[in-house]
Amino acid sequence: MESYKTIIEEGLRSALSTYLHPGQLYDPIRYLIEGGGKRIRPLLTLLACETACAEAGRAVNAAIAVEMLHAFTLVHDDIMDNSEIRRGRLTVHKKWNANAAILTGDVMIGIALRLLGKDAHHCVQPLKVFDAFTNGLIRVCEGQALDMWHLNSPHVTSDDYLAMIDLKTAKLLETAVEVGACIGNASDQHITALKEFAHDIGLAFQLNDDLLDLTGGEQFGKTAGGDIVQGKRTWLMITLRDSVRGEQDSSVVSEFFENNGLHRSRIPEVRSLMETYGILDRARALIESLTLTAQSHLSAVPDCDARKNLERLTLQLMERQH
Amino acid sequence: MESYKTIIEEGLRSALSTYLHPGQLYDPIRYLIEGGGKRIRPLLTLLACETACAEAGRAVNAAIAVEMLHAFTLVHDDIMDNSEIRRGRLTVHKKWNANAAILTGDVMIGIALRLLGKDAHHCVQPLKVFDAFTNGLIRVCEGQALDMWHLNSPHVTSDDYLAMIDLKTAKLLETAVEVGACIGNASDQHITALKEFAHDIGLAFQLNDDLLDLTGGEQFGKTAGGDIVQGKRTWLMITLRDSVRGEQDSSVVSEFFENNGLHRSRIPEVRSLMETYGILDRARALIESLTLTAQSHLSAVPDCDARKNLERLTLQLMERQH
Repeated sequence: MESYKTIIEEGLRSALSTYLHPGQLYDPIRYLIEGGGKRIRPLLTLLACETACAEAGRAVNAAIAVEMLHAFTLVHDDIMDNSEIRRGRLTVHKKWNANAAILTGDVMIGIALRLLGKDAHHCVQPLKVFDAFTNGLIRVCEGQALDMWHLNSPHVTSDDYLAMIDLKTAKLLETAVEVGACIGNASDQHITALKEFAHDIGLAFQLNDDLLDLTGGEQFGKTAGGDIVQGKRTWLMITLRDSVRGEQDSSVVSEFFENNGLHRSRIPEVRSLMETYGILDRARALIESLTLTAQSHLSAVPDCDARKNLERLTLQLMERQH
Repeated sequence: MESYKTIIEEGLRSALSTYLHPGQLYDPIRYLIEGGGKRIRPLLTLLACETACAEAGRAVNAAIAVEMLHAFTLVHDDIMDNSEIRRGRLTVHKKWNANAAILTGDVMIGIALRLLGKDAHHCVQPLKVFDAFTNGLIRVCEGQALDMWHLNSPHVTSDDYLAMIDLKTAKLLETAVEVGACIGNASDQHITALKEFAHDIGLAFQLNDDLLDLTGGEQFGKTAGGDIVQGKRTWLMITLRDSVRGEQDSSVVSEFFENNGLHRSRIPEVRSLMETYGILDRARALIESLTLTAQSHLSAVPDCDARKNLERLTLQLMERQH
């Protein structure tokens, strides 16, 4: 897997090396990309391409395009969420300003499209590559719109939440594999299987991230329980609300939903309630179930090294858990 | 020309009719588009297509895509410029909020791409259509970055200004004709001629807009002299600065550049200086010259109704002048 990481980091560096002037537009992109990241999406693109044609190199530009699309969402989401820190460093809008962050995000979509165009010609139907990209872009915006709307809504259900992360997280992973598989000229059946796989690991991944926000401590450059402070209606909080309804313990939960968040000092109380009501275990079981379903979709993909790597990647992602 | 306008308005309505949920994401787009506009860019796309294949209908989706790309820039620019009014109505970020405006602008790029994909298949080299679009997106961001940077810079030259409007205004008109001509499968020479035409009318159009800001009064839904109040380094102000340098009259101009704008009450003083130093006449002459050069590029385009309509459009645009 390390060799893919090297290809991706080198691809990112090389893609950005041609974007220098104006510096106030392009410097923030380099800053953001140098901040690191798990690079899951470009890895999915390379592996998806390889499952189809055994030649990941064909989709390197497209893989970087997908990472750039993801990075664009981070820059704009950080403005909207007013986040100050990402990966232990100041967010773009805090280090520069909101205007620079808006414009830098915008141009990243352009850079991504240009990279995509470089690899799309490998594809028998090149427009399918742009369709997959466009779908990812539109869905991720819809997901973010729902996420913002949920923030002030008292009645979000766990289904609403799953629909939101489907759009905000899973769809972009689907885009990642679809772009790679299209460039590898995979069959429709093959592409569908990879998209179903990506969809399920997308949901599992986001649920796992929410769990880590509460249980992972400081190890991921975040403060534990940040989602509770910010009033995020995660699956965990929604399921807790539905479980404690009418019980004596429900006041802190009501307070969370009424005040759109709680003071940092209340985090242990919420966490302990989650343990009492088995919410954390239920989340772990849901993640486990999604991961298994994800893996099962891979049976429709030809058995090859790349498929094994997709299985391995899934396990690695979920190992970050608990 | 009216029949094209009808096609464009109908195309915009129809394109947006499928984007309904979430309303907080898509309602602002309808609001903005219903606010009207000159629709110059989609008209250029249709006419450019028609100069190549005599069938504008082939490029209707692409024309709407180009208008959508333009509208995206308006939504984001209005946030960055903190503009409150556009076409006599509240801007999106004032009617909703900055977050809604950021996200709505983002998704408009996605909608534009999806529309583009619908017409690109008419093209022998469909990726060229996406290349043209992408180039427009990247250049317009670069232009906006320079525009923001100019705002606080004391030493902007008239060449800097022309380079900025080349990126911010002219390049998107080039995209408009390139997309249309590509879909019409025009020759490279034909496409180049149309792009040169679009480039020159783009510069003329922006200079004309700057002139109208000062001389056009309230008729365009703006307050006369707004650019002076906002401290915009237009060609007019830069040329005035270069003309009055060392003269007795120079203090109000220095004040403009030092304080990044002037109080509304000083507008008549600046305007009168511009007349004294012949700046307005020089601007008119430059616009005239660019318009003539633009028309001359059309000689490389086959003589047809669409070419005559491009000539007519140019004259109409410049009639708004003085």
